Amino acid sequence: MSEIERVALIGAGVIGAGWAARFAVNGIDVAAYDPDPRAAARIADALENARRAYAKLTLAPPVPPGRIAIAGEIAEAVAGADFVQESAPERVEIKRALLAEASRVTDPGIVIASSTSGLLPSELQAGCVAPDRICVGHPFNPVYLLPLVEVVGGQATAGNAKARAAAVYRSVGMYPLVLDTEIDAFVADRLLEALWREALHLIDGGVATADQIDQAIVYGPGLRWSVMGTFLLYRLAGGEAGMRHFLEQFGGALDLPWAHVEGPTLTDRLIERIVAQSDAQAAGRAIRDLERLRDDCLVSVMQGLRTQNHGAGAVLRDYEAQLFSRAHRASRTSERDLSRPLRLHTVRVAPEWVDFNNHMTESRYLQVFGDATDALLRFVGVDSDYLAAGHSYYTVETHIRHQREAAGEEPLAVSTRVLGCDEKRLHLFHRMSHEETDTELATAEHMLLHVDTRVARAAPAAPEVLARLREIEDAQAGLGAPDAAGRAIAMPTGPDPGADSR
Amino acid sequence: MSEIERVALIGAGVIGAGWAARFAVNGIDVAAYDPDPRAAARIADALENARRAYAKLTLAPPVPPGRIAIAGEIAEAVAGADFVQESAPERVEIKRALLAEASRVTDPGIVIASSTSGLLPSELQAGCVAPDRICVGHPFNPVYLLPLVEVVGGQATAGNAKARAAAVYRSVGMYPLVLDTEIDAFVADRLLEALWREALHLIDGGVATADQIDQAIVYGPGLRWSVMGTFLLYRLAGGEAGMRHFLEQFGGALDLPWAHVEGPTLTDRLIERIVAQSDAQAAGRAIRDLERLRDDCLVSVMQGLRTQNHGAGAVLRDYEAQLFSRAHRASRTSERDLSRPLRLHTVRVAPEWVDFNNHMTESRYLQVFGDATDALLRFVGVDSDYLAAGHSYYTVETHIRHQREAAGEEPLAVSTRVLGCDEKRLHLFHRMSHEETDTELATAEHMLLHVDTRVARAAPAAPEVLARLREIEDAQAGLGAPDAAGRAIAMPTGPDPGADSR
Repeated sequence: MSEIERVALIGAGVIGAGWAARFAVNGIDVAAYDPDPRAAARIADALENARRAYAKLTLAPPVPPGRIAIAGEIAEAVAGADFVQESAPERVEIKRALLAEASRVTDPGIVIASSTSGLLPSELQAGCVAPDRICVGHPFNPVYLLPLVEVVGGQATAGNAKARAAAVYRSVGMYPLVLDTEIDAFVADRLLEALWREALHLIDGGVATADQIDQAIVYGPGLRWSVMGTFLLYRLAGGEAGMRHFLEQFGGALDLPWAHVEGPTLTDRLIERIVAQSDAQAAGRAIRDLERLRDDCLVSVMQGLRTQNHGAGAVLRDYEAQLFSRAHRASRTSERDLSRPLRLHTVRVAPEWVDFNNHMTESRYLQVFGDATDALLRFVGVDSDYLAAGHSYYTVETHIRHQREAAGEEPLAVSTRVLGCDEKRLHLFHRMSHEETDTELATAEHMLLHVDTRVARAAPAAPEVLARLREIEDAQAGLGAPDAAGRAIAMPTGPDPGADSR
Repeated sequence: MSEIERVALIGAGVIGAGWAARFAVNGIDVAAYDPDPRAAARIADALENARRAYAKLTLAPPVPPGRIAIAGEIAEAVAGADFVQESAPERVEIKRALLAEASRVTDPGIVIASSTSGLLPSELQAGCVAPDRICVGHPFNPVYLLPLVEVVGGQATAGNAKARAAAVYRSVGMYPLVLDTEIDAFVADRLLEALWREALHLIDGGVATADQIDQAIVYGPGLRWSVMGTFLLYRLAGGEAGMRHFLEQFGGALDLPWAHVEGPTLTDRLIERIVAQSDAQAAGRAIRDLERLRDDCLVSVMQGLRTQNHGAGAVLRDYEAQLFSRAHRASRTSERDLSRPLRLHTVRVAPEWVDFNNHMTESRYLQVFGDATDALLRFVGVDSDYLAAGHSYYTVETHIRHQREAAGEEPLAVSTRVLGCDEKRLHLFHRMSHEETDTELATAEHMLLHVDTRVARAAPAAPEVLARLREIEDAQAGLGAPDAAGRAIAMPTGPDPGADSR
């Protein structure tokens, strides 16, 4: 998979240590040169962070990590390396000296990339042996997680050096943005620097604090920027009329004192160029389709952040608590016919629950059934007070039978029967169907045990919970046992199952 | 839940239509004034987008939507409204005239907020009746999804008007950022405008295209900005030494020609102010803890985007395909003792898999067993080519038995047996245990059916897959049937289960 087996790193600050971690978690051996005695500890910290993050990032089988060695000299670091990455402090004289030395001791066929945030590759490669293999590969912190790396060549850089660097980065999960033109700070850091300088002016002027400025990013523009860049977003802000309309409508703001920097004059030539590039970027996709792509991604990003209860995800969680408490108030006042299966849980198949065939994945069936079990337990009085007092029901057995696939966005309903109960056991049967057509999708049979959670032992349920369960069991007794209940899994002894479809 | 029951909107362009959608999906009635005959269609489109997004956003029960009416005059729109939001074109004379009229016909106790991106509230409220209830409530597109709204008062604005607006916004799931100081473009749009103007210079100078600029955002800085703002991120970039170190190390870049705008001079006073505000923002949290918070959120954001196969999520998906294909190659060449249960899947219990008791949730057991099934299928040759050719195994029955709880971070191993197979069926048995101690946690018995996925019917498996499965079945036959296999779920007919602990 990897393009390389061994990489040399020159400099192991925050960025260099991040490179060490990214290469090592991808199974690539690392030799790092940094005179700072704290370099090894920084790399160990970054690697620990990276391994922790990768264990969560992907369910793909982990790669055996590469070995990490600290080299006492540049020549030692680059010996046998397939690729060299320099991440020294952001001062041109330091970087030039280190790159020149590295170029003298590295095979001329090996690409050497600099992590500089914005120094010109043409300046950096001056004084190097075989400068055609010197380029910039500018990553973003944390290097082991963020995909972006800007690949920029100087006047002496050969095209295949940039291509080689891009291939190396791609093989370790990165997204190389290969630029054609070198300019101080390239592209990303020009944008970062413009925003940063404006932010410093805001603090200098006492307009807002660092935290307010950060909030102004993470709850709004920052969320969008994880999904789309400024140009595509503004195309959508123009509505159906697109980029030209946006420039007509908001171009005037360029003359307002809305930032310390002045924009370029919106000449016809510039407008045409922007509109043409925006059209190329949209590639024929309608505004409405792009809006839905944006919205789907924003929903997914906010749901991702909700798992961390952070930023916009924390806002979403608070908002949902409002919605749920309103719904709970409504359900407490509802009357039910206990002689029918109880429909206590309905849910729509979420986009992240489906596989690439748009079928709900196996474990989500059990998630939905588990939520239906929770709904029944709440219905019979197993509420947050009951749980807090140290009592709960634990599932000890589950038998699921699948009839049909549930698709993304499909509305599901689960109806529930109490097949039996005693002081410690509860025998349930759920039927999952399409909420509107009632087409059966799957059934689940569960045995639960009532436990004292403080000692993790079976214990009798509270009398009022048991009474409520028995009331349901008795009321439903006339329904008879479901066909799918009480079955064991076995290979058939008779003929082949034939062409039964699912 | 909501602070208000009815809202008046003045202006229904992209922003006003977005407000209509946000209020309506939260059960609030909307009366919108906009002379443009296309306003009703814009609102309908935005509402459709919003309802679609909210159905995915939250599993909370939906609120019955508010009614939407188009008003022919401002006075008609504001009649009976609890709150007024103006979203007219961004020209001060237009907004002043509309706000003045609205203030004349709206009860003086009702707050009127302007959606302006950056015009000063003091200028907007001049000419208004009861200007103390006029403020800015600046949202971000798409208004129905992004939480941020900047709340800014002018010289005449009363504090309780800002508080009231913030409460209204909070009740519809937003995050109000209440600012103390008015300034052209407030905070967020100053940052947006600085970045936008720099981006226009890049296009004007022919350095990069609109699409390249957008890529430079979404694959790197934009991902981070959905999680943390610039100040907190740079604090982390300073490493353990924090913000002061960052300013020492990178402050010099302010003098480099890295953006068209000049930053303020980093005086000692400014440095102290930034460091103090950064310390306040970090609130005593260690760099290492903040790094892990950042990384956990980045992982979740990228996983969210992966469900949409977009941006950094598409990069992650490609990367995982590399990892899986490498694992497939490795597993094809590995030698196994087929007469023992096959240990093909190990995994650590992820933090998001556990409930508040630190127990792995029910559906995650099935997820782990499902992944073990996938590992076995890959092992016998059901790989991506096989799936792409329209063949797969679908699970039709599952029986899980739980012995002990799995805890967060616990290393799990699953060993797998082939209990039986024929042309169309596969009968599997998994045993999940602690990877190191081998303590049994749960077992799962599955029946799978081989299907032609193009017609969704049972179909014979490929001969080489079947041969491999039979080889395993035969080799494991000497192990005898597992005790837990072939069982049905039933209430006991004998005595009480007693105090069996789990």
